[in-house]
Amino acid sequence: MHTQHFFTLLASCPDRVGIVARVAGFIAEHHGWILETSHYADADTGRYFMRIDIKADSLPFHLAEFRRLFAPIAEALQMDWRITDSAVRKRVVILVSRQEHCLYDLLARWQSKELQVEIPCVISNHLDFKGFVEWHGIPFHHIPIGTDTKKEAYAEIQRLYEEVKGDVMVLARYMQIIPPELCEAYPGRIINIHHSFLPSFVGARPYHQAYQRGVKLIGATCHYVTAELDAGPIIEQDTVRIDHGDSVHDLVRYGKDIEKTVLARGLRFHVEDRVLLNGNRTVVFR
Amino acid sequence: MHTQHFFTLLASCPDRVGIVARVAGFIAEHHGWILETSHYADADTGRYFMRIDIKADSLPFHLAEFRRLFAPIAEALQMDWRITDSAVRKRVVILVSRQEHCLYDLLARWQSKELQVEIPCVISNHLDFKGFVEWHGIPFHHIPIGTDTKKEAYAEIQRLYEEVKGDVMVLARYMQIIPPELCEAYPGRIINIHHSFLPSFVGARPYHQAYQRGVKLIGATCHYVTAELDAGPIIEQDTVRIDHGDSVHDLVRYGKDIEKTVLARGLRFHVEDRVLLNGNRTVVFR
Amino acid sequence: MHTQHFFTLLASCPDRVGIVARVAGFIAEHHGWILETSHYADADTGRYFMRIDIKADSLPFHLAEFRRLFAPIAEALQMDWRITDSAVRKRVVILVSRQEHCLYDLLARWQSKELQVEIPCVISNHLDFKGFVEWHGIPFHHIPIGTDTKKEAYAEIQRLYEEVKGDVMVLARYMQIIPPELCEAYPGRIINIHHSFLPSFVGARPYHQAYQRGVKLIGATCHYVTAELDAGPIIEQDTVRIDHGDSVHDLVRYGKDIEKTVLARGLRFHVEDRVLLNGNRTVVFR
Amino acid sequence: MHTQHFFTLLASCPDRVGIVARVAGFIAEHHGWILETSHYADADTGRYFMRIDIKADSLPFHLAEFRRLFAPIAEALQMDWRITDSAVRKRVVILVSRQEHCLYDLLARWQSKELQVEIPCVISNHLDFKGFVEWHGIPFHHIPIGTDTKKEAYAEIQRLYEEVKGDVMVLARYMQIIPPELCEAYPGRIINIHHSFLPSFVGARPYHQAYQRGVKLIGATCHYVTAELDAGPIIEQDTVRIDHGDSVHDLVRYGKDIEKTVLARGLRFHVEDRVLLNGNRTVVFR
Repeated sequence: MHTQHFFTLLASCPDRVGIVARVAGFIAEHHGWILETSHYADADTGRYFMRIDIKADSLPFHLAEFRRLFAPIAEALQMDWRITDSAVRKRVVILVSRQEHCLYDLLARWQSKELQVEIPCVISNHLDFKGFVEWHGIPFHHIPIGTDTKKEAYAEIQRLYEEVKGDVMVLARYMQIIPPELCEAYPGRIINIHHSFLPSFVGARPYHQAYQRGVKLIGATCHYVTAELDAGPIIEQDTVRIDHGDSVHDLVRYGKDIEKTVLARGLRFHVEDRVLLNGNRTVVFR
Repeated sequence: MHTQHFFTLLASCPDRVGIVARVAGFIAEHHGWILETSHYADADTGRYFMRIDIKADSLPFHLAEFRRLFAPIAEALQMDWRITDSAVRKRVVILVSRQEHCLYDLLARWQSKELQVEIPCVISNHLDFKGFVEWHGIPFHHIPIGTDTKKEAYAEIQRLYEEVKGDVMVLARYMQIIPPELCEAYPGRIINIHHSFLPSFVGARPYHQAYQRGVKLIGATCHYVTAELDAGPIIEQDTVRIDHGDSVHDLVRYGKDIEKTVLARGLRFHVEDRVLLNGNRTVVFR
Repeated sequence: MHTQHFFTLLASCPDRVGIVARVAGFIAEHHGWILETSHYADADTGRYFMRIDIKADSLPFHLAEFRRLFAPIAEALQMDWRITDSAVRKRVVILVSRQEHCLYDLLARWQSKELQVEIPCVISNHLDFKGFVEWHGIPFHHIPIGTDTKKEAYAEIQRLYEEVKGDVMVLARYMQIIPPELCEAYPGRIINIHHSFLPSFVGARPYHQAYQRGVKLIGATCHYVTAELDAGPIIEQDTVRIDHGDSVHDLVRYGKDIEKTVLARGLRFHVEDRVLLNGNRTVVFR
Repeated sequence: MHTQHFFTLLASCPDRVGIVARVAGFIAEHHGWILETSHYADADTGRYFMRIDIKADSLPFHLAEFRRLFAPIAEALQMDWRITDSAVRKRVVILVSRQEHCLYDLLARWQSKELQVEIPCVISNHLDFKGFVEWHGIPFHHIPIGTDTKKEAYAEIQRLYEEVKGDVMVLARYMQIIPPELCEAYPGRIINIHHSFLPSFVGARPYHQAYQRGVKLIGATCHYVTAELDAGPIIEQDTVRIDHGDSVHDLVRYGKDIEKTVLARGLRFHVEDRVLLNGNRTVVFR
């Protein structure tokens, strides 16, 4: 990955002759320097996906003008597209419950600027991490989820997310089921880490399920949240070896290490604009 | 692993104080030299599992006498047990269809004596590998599986397996569903390689299922065959990374590499008497 | 990967504005349908690398005409380039000694057409695999390497390689050191599998070296052969976990599984024109 | 792993007939309940290693009496041995420089009691993590390492380590070379994480070395520190895949994830008394 200031053009459109030529031609015409490009054509659906990083100072204009000038080309190619500025950091709202591993991991990456995002606030249904989060200078909101107050609680979460102008919501082992309305309000913008190798072991207590089935590897899955539980588009997964001697307690412990790594990778792909939705699957330009 | 001539004692029994002392005491009393030992206590079920390799020539007697002398101890401890001789090779009957990768892999390992087994015959519902198998000096039996002749075909397979005194039947991508009666006749003695990371993608065309779900890793599972499809005790599994650019065709190709490796590992564990059944799970003393 | 008939354009040149536009423009102008593209810019050296697959029947001409028409563009961009035809299979000459695993593995892949190459002959300093190779209908040449006859032996190998119009020579655990003159005659065209995770354990008996050092993983490395032993550009590597209980004999056994897989992957990248040399490193467009 | 109160017996001795019988006999005689046992016989050196967990409340006495009663057996078997109490937590002194990932990771594990140790203090040559460490209620000592004050600095570190009765010193990316005298004062008690797959890329800037060599995987190594740089006994290692497109900056980023995981695993093995030295190698009973 390059470390300069750049713009990222993300697009998908029906596949045809001349897409690369048209887009690259436009960039070259304005003396744009291409730093990185990725392409993928889905042979089944006939859809084409692209991601291009352009050195910001090689272009004679800024994003607004890029958008204006590129619009006719995009329209001609029937593109879904967007262009983003690497200098504008995504705003990540983290939701957490009582498990520490993903939260510590994300804050360590944010602290060291490995993960280049803003964290406008952390929201939790418990108070355990209030001090830890605030020590980092990040606002902490305690929103308990009672049986009778669920509706109000999620309304408050949505209000906060809007107020801080969140770009993406991360469920860092939040352990609560997000109501369908919230899922549908932010398609492709709520990221969850599920503690199994989906589609195995959907739902509650996946490590117990894995133990009962006697699998020899366990996994973790980072995915976009949709109204159907644990069925959203998968961004990233990984597995780790276990054996017969490992208790459920051990599975939980091994699992934490891949959960936090898989979530961090998935989130990085998202905030670097490397993920495109392709139906219920994802295109991830690493 | 050691390469000398040895006996392997495999046992499980209710856990209690003094099991190791009793068994090791018996071995020491007869000057038996222990080469390798493994133990596992299942805290949930209170069952204890052990595997001990004893140098053959350190004992003053052979297996029959070992069995006679050890029987009272085993009875006192309520053991399920057996003792095997590393010099007596297991007889592996391979069933194959039209895919070559597992067959080539197993024969290469057999040929180089890495896999120390006898292969009394290979059975197939197709003729593709007749010449290849016979070139290795192994008898090849062609038993087609027609819709109307299934029953007779499996009876013939069972007859052949008994005739050659098979110890284990290996479905090396056999691609046919084994009838329940055959499964139940040989519990823990029929080994299959399933081309998914079970319990994900049970049944037909798992790579197509994996592609549709958009997973980021695919897997393979070596398991004992039971009457319920793809639900038997798992011996070994592994996964490999794929990405959005991989077609079903690519998944099949990547999958072959883990299928053959996982099958070979699982079979080795079995023929080296490293696997014990623990309900529908396995204890694998690597 | 796509399965249609296509041309692959592989090129590298000094990085500058407009390369993609120029090349994609040329292709689009002739109505070429791009199936797959990969790009990489080395920020340290300022060199740009690309690989483009074009559907063969989308172009109005064949390779000779492509070459003629594209030459001025390539010249203007100071390109090292070539274009290949997926219908013309690479000719792979395999050199083998007495270990079977890589040979069986490559022939299984060739047999099933997973590896789409021609194997005009297999050369060995031993006779062990003569029958096995010939059973596949592939000519086998026995060229012993005596202390006094080395020079003649390698001259004969080179003569055979030229005679069968070999595109690439594969040392499938050949276990002999190739003389510098032969290495230099075919830069980027002799592929070796070394049984360690280079640069660890260069030279003889790497598994013994690994055992002595007490490493917890062992590896295998597929690389282009150069005059300096085990120091050529690396195409592919992998590792596998071992533990204190594993003898050198076990390391050899585990190692074989990654050796054959790593060699097969590296060779596939090469024959699919996915590898470009970048000094002593490689660019591998997977 | 079990979660009860237990004692761990760790021992090595010359291999011979009857070791297990003698030790297990002693335990059974006192009604000791064995929770977990591991054994390894090094065929090359003829040395035998064992680790046994005994349920604490199954024995009629405590450690002092165990030691007194077991001593004659240990002497007869020429054992190096020790027995520890799972209720007595190891005291881990962490040394850190300016990189956050290992420190955050270890404190998260300590905080959640996944890593059951005491951390009597953190020592650093920089002030960056003073607030973070102290927020956790752990004393922080700032000991700068100047060119002229090295001797005094390390004397002060040793004094602190002794003062807090440290059991093990962890270099969590401490980035300083420990003087030989300190290494030799605590053999098998100073643990380092090296940011390469040793023995590759010893010394400074291993990621730069890896980038220059063009390897396709990078690694991390957790090892005991000895007077010879990066040459001590290896406890744990792992690797992660990279590709040609990754800059040194990316390698550093990928590397952090395996560094922290490998260090945490190695440290856990150590504090759970799972590691025995076998010359310059380790026996790790997972």
